[in-house]
Amino acid sequence: MERIVQKFGGTSVRDVAHIRRAAERTAREVAAGNQVAVVVSAMAGETNRLVDLCGEVSPMYDAREYDSIVAAGEQVSSGLMALALQQLGVTARSWLGWQIPVVTDTVHGKARILSIDADELQARMAQGEVPVVAGFQGVAHGGPSRAGRIATLGRGGSDTSAVALAAALEADRCDIFTDVDGVFTADPRIVKRARKLSTVTYEEMLEMASLGAKVLQTRSVEMAMKHRVRVQVLSSFHDAPGTLVVDEEEKLEQEVVSGITYSRDEAKVTLVRVPDKPGIAADIFGPLSDANVNVDMIVQNVSEDGSTTDVTFTVSHGDLARAAEVLSAAQGRLGYERLVPDEDVVKISVIGMGMRSHAGVAKRMFRALADNNINIQVISTSEIKISVLVAEQYTELAVRALHHAYGLDEV
Amino acid sequence: MERIVQKFGGTSVRDVAHIRRAAERTAREVAAGNQVAVVVSAMAGETNRLVDLCGEVSPMYDAREYDSIVAAGEQVSSGLMALALQQLGVTARSWLGWQIPVVTDTVHGKARILSIDADELQARMAQGEVPVVAGFQGVAHGGPSRAGRIATLGRGGSDTSAVALAAALEADRCDIFTDVDGVFTADPRIVKRARKLSTVTYEEMLEMASLGAKVLQTRSVEMAMKHRVRVQVLSSFHDAPGTLVVDEEEKLEQEVVSGITYSRDEAKVTLVRVPDKPGIAADIFGPLSDANVNVDMIVQNVSEDGSTTDVTFTVSHGDLARAAEVLSAAQGRLGYERLVPDEDVVKISVIGMGMRSHAGVAKRMFRALADNNINIQVISTSEIKISVLVAEQYTELAVRALHHAYGLDEV
Repeated sequence: MERIVQKFGGTSVRDVAHIRRAAERTAREVAAGNQVAVVVSAMAGETNRLVDLCGEVSPMYDAREYDSIVAAGEQVSSGLMALALQQLGVTARSWLGWQIPVVTDTVHGKARILSIDADELQARMAQGEVPVVAGFQGVAHGGPSRAGRIATLGRGGSDTSAVALAAALEADRCDIFTDVDGVFTADPRIVKRARKLSTVTYEEMLEMASLGAKVLQTRSVEMAMKHRVRVQVLSSFHDAPGTLVVDEEEKLEQEVVSGITYSRDEAKVTLVRVPDKPGIAADIFGPLSDANVNVDMIVQNVSEDGSTTDVTFTVSHGDLARAAEVLSAAQGRLGYERLVPDEDVVKISVIGMGMRSHAGVAKRMFRALADNNINIQVISTSEIKISVLVAEQYTELAVRALHHAYGLDEV
Repeated sequence: MERIVQKFGGTSVRDVAHIRRAAERTAREVAAGNQVAVVVSAMAGETNRLVDLCGEVSPMYDAREYDSIVAAGEQVSSGLMALALQQLGVTARSWLGWQIPVVTDTVHGKARILSIDADELQARMAQGEVPVVAGFQGVAHGGPSRAGRIATLGRGGSDTSAVALAAALEADRCDIFTDVDGVFTADPRIVKRARKLSTVTYEEMLEMASLGAKVLQTRSVEMAMKHRVRVQVLSSFHDAPGTLVVDEEEKLEQEVVSGITYSRDEAKVTLVRVPDKPGIAADIFGPLSDANVNVDMIVQNVSEDGSTTDVTFTVSHGDLARAAEVLSAAQGRLGYERLVPDEDVVKISVIGMGMRSHAGVAKRMFRALADNNINIQVISTSEIKISVLVAEQYTELAVRALHHAYGLDEV
C-alpha cells in the first residue's frame, strides 16, 4: 500500500470527458490498493475567465474579492471530480480550502500555506475514501472568532497545494499530471531532439521552474525540497512514467548539464550615465524593492571617465512599467541621464548539478553562442546554472546550439 | 435612516455592465444615508451551466457535491458586486454562506435556513460598510468540530436568502430587483392590459408564487409573511416603484380579485376504474407521498354502477414519471384498470383576498370559461383562490377572458 497525492492540472480537467479520464487514473490507483488524495486545478480557461471578469469590473481590484471569485474555479472542478469518482464506484468527496482547513497567510492573491490539518483526510483515506481537494486555495488566518476569507496561492498554485498536501499526509509520492510527458532537457517545441529526463534533482528543478520551464510552480518545488516530497511529473494523456524529482543521491543520470531553459518574460532596463558614487546601487534598488519590483540580473559597467556608470538590470514584463515609474520619479535624486527600457530580450540558462565539479561549463556556453554570432548582454550565475540575456530573436537558435553543445541531443 | 436589503436576480447581474448598474442602485441608497445589505444571485445562465455540468458527469449526482458546485455561481457574482461597489467608492465586502454563517439543515439541494448570525454584518453596516451576500447558499449544520458543507436552497433560493437576511437584520424593507416591474394582475406577455399592483398581501403573493407567477420564490413569501418583512418587487431596469407585499391592513387596493395566474408545469394522471372501497385514497396517495411526489389537485368521480370510480390528480411535470412508476408497481394491489397520463394541461387560478367576503366569484369564473367553450377538467379551491385545470391550448384565451371578466383590464 502506498499513499499517493494525484494532482490534475487545468488541461487534464478541461471538460467532462477529461475529468472522467482523470477519475479513471485515480480509480486505478485505488483498485491497486493505494490510498489516494486528489488535487485539482480549475477547468482550463476558467481561471482566466474569472480573472478577466475582475479586471473588467475594477482594474485595481481588492485582492480579497479577487481570491473569492477565482477560487470558484477549483470549487467547481473539485465537485465534478468527486462526482466522476463516485460514478466509477469510488467513495469520494470534495474539500474546499476552508473546509480542511488549508490555512494561509493574508497575502491575498499570492498567499503562502501556513498549515494543513490532514487528520480528518487521513482518517477517511484509511477507510478507502478519496478526498478531492480544490487546489490553489486556502483560508486566510483570520483570528479565532470569525470565519476567514478565501486566499489563493497565485497562478499555478495547485502544484503547491498538491505538494503541501503530500507533505501533510506524509505521502509516498505526489504525481503531478500535466499536458507534457515530464521534464525535458529543453522545450521540445523548440528542440526536436530534446530528451525526457527520468530524474531531476530538486535543485535543478527549482532552477528550471524559476528560469521559465513551466512544468512546476517554483514554490511547489521549494516546498517539495524542504519536506522531501517525491514529486513525479507525468502526462495525463499517456500511460508512461514521467520525471521523478529527487534528492541528489537518488539521481540516475549524471550529466554535467541537465537542461537548457529560456524565459521570454524578461525586460531589461538601463540607466545611462549614473553618477558613480558609493551607495548608488542602494539608492536605485531600494525604492524598487519597496515597490515590490523583483529585480533579477544586475550589471554595472564602469564608464570610461570614471565619473559615471551605466547600470543595467532585468525585471519581468509585468514589473517594467512600475520599475520605470519608480525610477523616473527618482531621476532628480539619482542623477542619471536617461532610462532605456528593452523588452526584446530573452534569458537563456544552462542548468546542471554537475556544474559544481566540472570546469569549463561557462566557457562552452560562451563559445557556442559566439559561434552563432549571438551577443551576450548580461550574465548571471549560481552554483548550478549560468544565465545569459540575449536579443529575443535568438531564442530558438541559442537553445538549440546549447542543447547540442552540451551533448544533450537524443541519439 | 432606513435599513434596506437589496436583492439582485440573475438577469440584474448578467454581465459586468448590469452589475455596475446594480451597484449604482446600491450606491444611491447609501448616499441617501441608508444602511444597505445586498444579496445577489448568480449571473444569468451560470447556475444552469453548472447544473448541466453536474448532470453530464453523473445523472444521479450526490446533492452535496452539486451544492458545492452550483454555489460557485453566487460566489463569483458576490465578489464582482463588491468590486463594483468599491469602484463607486462604497465600502463593501462579499460574504459567502459559510462566512456569515447562514446555517441550514442538511437537505442538500433544497435546504432550509435554520439561522443567520447577523451581528457582524449589523456592526459593519453601522460603520457604513455594505455586505454583499451570496444568495442561494448556506452551510449545512455539521456538528461542532468540523467545517460544514455548502448547502443550497433550491432554485430561486436567493429570494429566500434576501428575506431571511432582512428578517435577521430587522430591515425596514427588502427590495427584490428583477426583470419585471412588479406583480401584475396577469402575465403581461399574455394580457396586454394587465396592471401592475401597487400592493399585494402576503397571502395573495403566496398563492401567486405557488400558482405559477414566477416573481418570487414561494418559500421567500412564506418567510416574509412569518417574519412580517416588507418586501418590494421592482425592476432593476427602470426607476419606478414596484409592488409592495404587505399585511392585509396595509393594502391600498381592495379588489375582490387581485390577479389571474397560470401554471404550465402540471400533469394530470387518471386512474380508470379503481375499485370503490374505503381506504382506496390512502392506498393511492400514501405511496406517492412516500416517493416524495407532490400531489396538487385531486378529484374522484363517482362511477355509474357504484362499484368502481375514476381518480384524477395532478403533479408537476418533473414528478410524472415517478408517480406513474409508483402506481404501476402497485397496480395489482390497487386493482385499477389503467393509468392515463396527460401533460397537455394548464392550471388557471383566480386569486384575491376579497373572495372571502364576496359571493359569486367562482360562478363568474365558470361562466367566463363556459362562454369561451373552455372545458374545466378539475377544480380546486382555497379561501383566497380558485384553480381550474383546462387543456393547455386554452391558456391565453382563459387568462384573458378571466382578466376581463373580473374587471382587471387597465382602462
